Amino acid sequence: MSANATDRLRAEYRPGFAMPRDFYLSPEVYESDIRDYWNRSWIWVGHVSQLEVPGDFFVFDYGPESVIVARDRDGTTGAFQNVCRHRGSRLCMEASGNTRVFACPYHAWTYELSGKLRRAREMAEGFDPADYGLLKLHLREFEGLLFVCAADTPPEIDDGLAQLGPLVAPFGLRNMRIAHTASYTVPANWKLAVENYMECYHCAGAHLDFARSHSIKEPGHKTTELVQALHPRSRAVGLPVNEVSRYDPGKATLFYKRYPLFEGYQTGSRTGAPLAPLLGDLTGFDGGATDLQIGILNNFIIYSDHTVGYRFIPVSQLECRIEVVWLVRADAEAGKDFDHGDLTWLWHATSLDDERIIRHNQEGVKSHHFVPGPLSEMEWGITAFYNDYFSVSAG
Amino acid sequence: MSANATDRLRAEYRPGFAMPRDFYLSPEVYESDIRDYWNRSWIWVGHVSQLEVPGDFFVFDYGPESVIVARDRDGTTGAFQNVCRHRGSRLCMEASGNTRVFACPYHAWTYELSGKLRRAREMAEGFDPADYGLLKLHLREFEGLLFVCAADTPPEIDDGLAQLGPLVAPFGLRNMRIAHTASYTVPANWKLAVENYMECYHCAGAHLDFARSHSIKEPGHKTTELVQALHPRSRAVGLPVNEVSRYDPGKATLFYKRYPLFEGYQTGSRTGAPLAPLLGDLTGFDGGATDLQIGILNNFIIYSDHTVGYRFIPVSQLECRIEVVWLVRADAEAGKDFDHGDLTWLWHATSLDDERIIRHNQEGVKSHHFVPGPLSEMEWGITAFYNDYFSVSAG
Amino acid sequence: MSANATDRLRAEYRPGFAMPRDFYLSPEVYESDIRDYWNRSWIWVGHVSQLEVPGDFFVFDYGPESVIVARDRDGTTGAFQNVCRHRGSRLCMEASGNTRVFACPYHAWTYELSGKLRRAREMAEGFDPADYGLLKLHLREFEGLLFVCAADTPPEIDDGLAQLGPLVAPFGLRNMRIAHTASYTVPANWKLAVENYMECYHCAGAHLDFARSHSIKEPGHKTTELVQALHPRSRAVGLPVNEVSRYDPGKATLFYKRYPLFEGYQTGSRTGAPLAPLLGDLTGFDGGATDLQIGILNNFIIYSDHTVGYRFIPVSQLECRIEVVWLVRADAEAGKDFDHGDLTWLWHATSLDDERIIRHNQEGVKSHHFVPGPLSEMEWGITAFYNDYFSVSAG
Repeated sequence: MSANATDRLRAEYRPGFAMPRDFYLSPEVYESDIRDYWNRSWIWVGHVSQLEVPGDFFVFDYGPESVIVARDRDGTTGAFQNVCRHRGSRLCMEASGNTRVFACPYHAWTYELSGKLRRAREMAEGFDPADYGLLKLHLREFEGLLFVCAADTPPEIDDGLAQLGPLVAPFGLRNMRIAHTASYTVPANWKLAVENYMECYHCAGAHLDFARSHSIKEPGHKTTELVQALHPRSRAVGLPVNEVSRYDPGKATLFYKRYPLFEGYQTGSRTGAPLAPLLGDLTGFDGGATDLQIGILNNFIIYSDHTVGYRFIPVSQLECRIEVVWLVRADAEAGKDFDHGDLTWLWHATSLDDERIIRHNQEGVKSHHFVPGPLSEMEWGITAFYNDYFSVSAG
Repeated sequence: MSANATDRLRAEYRPGFAMPRDFYLSPEVYESDIRDYWNRSWIWVGHVSQLEVPGDFFVFDYGPESVIVARDRDGTTGAFQNVCRHRGSRLCMEASGNTRVFACPYHAWTYELSGKLRRAREMAEGFDPADYGLLKLHLREFEGLLFVCAADTPPEIDDGLAQLGPLVAPFGLRNMRIAHTASYTVPANWKLAVENYMECYHCAGAHLDFARSHSIKEPGHKTTELVQALHPRSRAVGLPVNEVSRYDPGKATLFYKRYPLFEGYQTGSRTGAPLAPLLGDLTGFDGGATDLQIGILNNFIIYSDHTVGYRFIPVSQLECRIEVVWLVRADAEAGKDFDHGDLTWLWHATSLDDERIIRHNQEGVKSHHFVPGPLSEMEWGITAFYNDYFSVSAG
Repeated sequence: MSANATDRLRAEYRPGFAMPRDFYLSPEVYESDIRDYWNRSWIWVGHVSQLEVPGDFFVFDYGPESVIVARDRDGTTGAFQNVCRHRGSRLCMEASGNTRVFACPYHAWTYELSGKLRRAREMAEGFDPADYGLLKLHLREFEGLLFVCAADTPPEIDDGLAQLGPLVAPFGLRNMRIAHTASYTVPANWKLAVENYMECYHCAGAHLDFARSHSIKEPGHKTTELVQALHPRSRAVGLPVNEVSRYDPGKATLFYKRYPLFEGYQTGSRTGAPLAPLLGDLTGFDGGATDLQIGILNNFIIYSDHTVGYRFIPVSQLECRIEVVWLVRADAEAGKDFDHGDLTWLWHATSLDDERIIRHNQEGVKSHHFVPGPLSEMEWGITAFYNDYFSVSAG
């Protein structure tokens, strides 16, 4: 049934234009969003610093889904559906912690850190615990970033990550920790939040603080000269200047680009001054920032001294959460090496702007009189999202 | 899909009886309510006193829809869908104000007061702003009252308004202003609120204040004698006593009738005493009140010294708002010429009663055991509403 | 339409396993839950002590339904749909009281205590009030407990009650009164609450207070010896020790079993000490408790000195209420013969536990990755519930 609603949208879809209201309002489509798109896409769930020692675990939720990511006794990491194999109770209630086993709060079915069912009492003859281990998700670690995918056959990602590796290596992302996480509830379908991130057509008017310091996405900004000036500075501090742009149906989207901040800005700060110790092996500030996308749902901005991760999590059909994660060097101390308020200022302000404009977008899209209009040349990323959505959800 | 649910109701409908529960509970039917009935019906949105000078505008919302009504530089008025032609953002966020243009808060597409798209940056070659003006609604002004209709071909209204004109003229409705607006949220489908207004079978029992002073709708009230006594009094103060009653599929419903208040009541007040300066050209109080309906959704009660407008606005399937607007002469001063509390007393009390009984009606209608019963002879207006609903929504 | 969703579940159902997520999440299935299962099942609505004298009535609500149970002038009791036969208003707004008639708050249609329509004014020629009496439900009184069924042909119950009569007689249930009622709102589908009550597989881990004192349902508890010790004690105080277990499609489920408390427990109290005066004709405490089920939805625990009634009332698809009713001898005085806090302690604590585990069950069942697992040997009652559900809702 859900397939039909998505099929209708696929048939109605007019490349170069926005999507019709059912894309955001149909309950059938929302059901398919989770079942056919999110559950087959790579999702960024966290960072290895959240799993320091054996027994460490954390839980990541989206829509009706919940995933446990845990480090086993032998040091390996695994990802599991947070659903008991007996009668489906949510298994792990804590957002994070350290444990020896996962025991279901309902009937005490007990699972090991590897997901294996250790024990279920009073089962009939012939019951084999080996048949009832927790369902596993695919898990990839890339430079300390953890991604999961619930599909049987996930979109290709390994070749892509191999390609990204040398570009990202100098930032030492594995050697970071989460300094702050913020969550912004938006009364809108999650796809409007993704679309919003996919384009910077709205930045000049809606994000004044961002637009004052970040150059790349606005054609009017003499990008060519600024980029020419950036490249030698990047190389000088140890950063390659190659770009990666892979939008290929069936494969995880990949995008990597270092782009210039405006003069006087060394990082994404209010004054332009540094916010935290230099990342990884960098020998100085190049006045640039990196847009990194690993799978279209997972976005990162890498400054010379901190990284910001962005994701747009479905809560229900007309509610989502913008979740923003700020990471700094693992050895940076709050209060001494960085200030929380300064560190989070820019993307906190930007997220509040986004909450407002996405909400207004949802209100208008509800109208029976909404006719999807033509996209500007700065909104090509939205088309990339639609292509990925239709390709992945077709299975 | 929605057509099917409404078609089933049309097939099940038994003239002279109430409607089955799906009329109020089916999500398909609610979708059709807005798309096929409200979006093709004439809707009273406001009064010209809200658009005094060029640039004045106000917004009227119903269900998922939002309409801008504005006065252009050249003095003409227009009504537009409050939806950006780009990616559908709600365009105008203020309930009313004065502006030079409507600029979308998302990507700054900018529209003139005529609805014309003035500017959209970074669009591809071949983009013509002339193709992307705001979608217009039909707009009619009748004696200062503003009505819109979003249908391509609205129900006939002009001949009807021409017929009503001479009857309404003495009240000088154009020369009024809004003294007060109140909104009563009801946890019920909007159609139960409309049905409630369509009949006065419930008045004797449920509206004691109203029933004490208003005669016309209750058969037991010796209407004939009272009406015979009213007519010469009406004529004496300058009011025609003709009636209009047009319930004609395909045409906007029209109803006009002057009916008697009980002895001692000059207007709809607690004591019977006047509440505000005489309207228009009236030379005195005739002890009457006018029931005026222009399109079945738009209802007015015209006393000799004030007018009350009533509408029943869908919010969601099981929520609506009763909105009541009190108008007085444009030159009447609050505190001196009228008192807010006295002016609004009767219909405030009556609306609170209605909120309660409509809510209880909704509760009962939810039951699978609700079997629509026969209507009384005083409930013919409900049948008129059903006929209009089925006729308009059939398209 | 609803039949289809239930039919699909019936086809997917794998005996010995839990049910898939649609059983709890599909709006179609919830619609069918009420229309095809609750409205055809026997439902425990109250106790005769709530209807002492003619004119006494009380209202019982479930899902969108509301039922009036009343005692007429001639002493007979009746049950009626709480829906006016005119336009469907909820008729009786009070939860309980004493009245001469039921007058609709909307248009004053007035019904006698027998459900007969006495009066409806202004109806057309040919209207016969005899055609518009309140819709009746089947009503049975068993030992003072009142059950209703809205089906045309209810599941067989009279033979069953005749069989239960002698077993229950010594408790004198008719001669009791309600000491306390508590309601626990659970954000879960009602069927998860029923399933929870149908099995004690979770008791050992989730209900520590219960498990400390109650033996029967846990295989590990040397049940045979305890039961052998109980039987002579039960007979000694005047209680038969027969068991009844009828799970027969098309008939109301019946279950009666006296089972042992652990040593030192005379009743379901914190200390094991009595809570209230002995019930009925009992001559002493036997250290047992009775599990009584009359229709699968209606559950009772009969201690020697009080009775607890349990029901699981749908509110909406993802909300239900656990309602617990404590009954004591009619002549027991609060404060003197029993203490409210002591009386309700055990099942209050147990219900709070249940609220938590049912809620977590619902969270997990929402996942698209929930695969219904195998039931343990202690969960046969859940299979009985599924069988009853599919049998009754098939009509």
